[in-house]
Amino acid sequence: MSEIHVLRIGHRPERDKRVTTHIALTARALGARGVVVDRQDIKLEENVRSVVERFGGDFYIETGVQWRKVLKEFDGQVVHLTMYGMRLNEGLEKVKKEKRLLVVVGAEKVPPEVYQTADLNISVGNQPHSEIAALAIFLDRLTGGSALYEERGGKMKVIPNERGKTVIDIS
Amino acid sequence: MSEIHVLRIGHRPERDKRVTTHIALTARALGARGVVVDRQDIKLEENVRSVVERFGGDFYIETGVQWRKVLKEFDGQVVHLTMYGMRLNEGLEKVKKEKRLLVVVGAEKVPPEVYQTADLNISVGNQPHSEIAALAIFLDRLTGGSALYEERGGKMKVIPNERGKTVIDIS
Repeated sequence: MSEIHVLRIGHRPERDKRVTTHIALTARALGARGVVVDRQDIKLEENVRSVVERFGGDFYIETGVQWRKVLKEFDGQVVHLTMYGMRLNEGLEKVKKEKRLLVVVGAEKVPPEVYQTADLNISVGNQPHSEIAALAIFLDRLTGGSALYEERGGKMKVIPNERGKTVIDIS
Repeated sequence: MSEIHVLRIGHRPERDKRVTTHIALTARALGARGVVVDRQDIKLEENVRSVVERFGGDFYIETGVQWRKVLKEFDGQVVHLTMYGMRLNEGLEKVKKEKRLLVVVGAEKVPPEVYQTADLNISVGNQPHSEIAALAIFLDRLTGGSALYEERGGKMKVIPNERGKTVIDIS
């Protein structure tokens, strides 16, 4: 699998603070390299960087990017996740694993331009649900969840436990 | 696959409105029968019922339930999703597909009692990310995503489309 990047469009700092945080952390947990967000949101950047600082890896976040420019200049394949898109199984077959991948996740209204510019519009079910869930399932299916238990060299590390919490903190 | 139900613990109506809505709609999209939420939240119930009303199926939501009672009286297997739990692959092997299943998803702090009462504590990765993503991946892996494109007999129906939006509205 090549590099995966995520573009979040339609972020509204007050309303979407938590949803976009979930998107960023989901992208990180599933092995994406980083996320860019259209509206500037310093607090969101701080929250995500604080997780990276503690739990390791080199996931990046940048907010306040011009999404049209990102879409246009991205060197690789662009996949837009939308409930209106093609079936997931069919879409996954068209993803080129040797290319860099940009996964676009919108908020409620996504400009028609995104549907037109993306290489693929893929649905994760045709029911209204959650862009976080859609991103999670798409990345899990694409990567087989290979990053979920990856060693990231963080100061804090959680060890699987059947009945309690095991956290190693070397900070 | 037998019946799947979801219990959301630690819901705070103001703060978690959107996150818990995403949990409910994710559960619905992936074929769960319904969701119960510990704190009463009429607005949340209305939002979810409005989706069911338009998009079909018979998913239920109930808020203001006593979670200890639900956990204690549930007739079936109880799986608590937590980043501290056992590895996902290992956990999935222990899920008894012939039994009714209650999937518990907490907010930030989950009482130790939940870890003790659950039949299984399963992680979807040991990194901090999103309970919505964890629920999505767990249900997708468990069911093979069999409900994602299921016919639900709703007034509104979305048809997969490579480049635009196709919605059939028979209301």
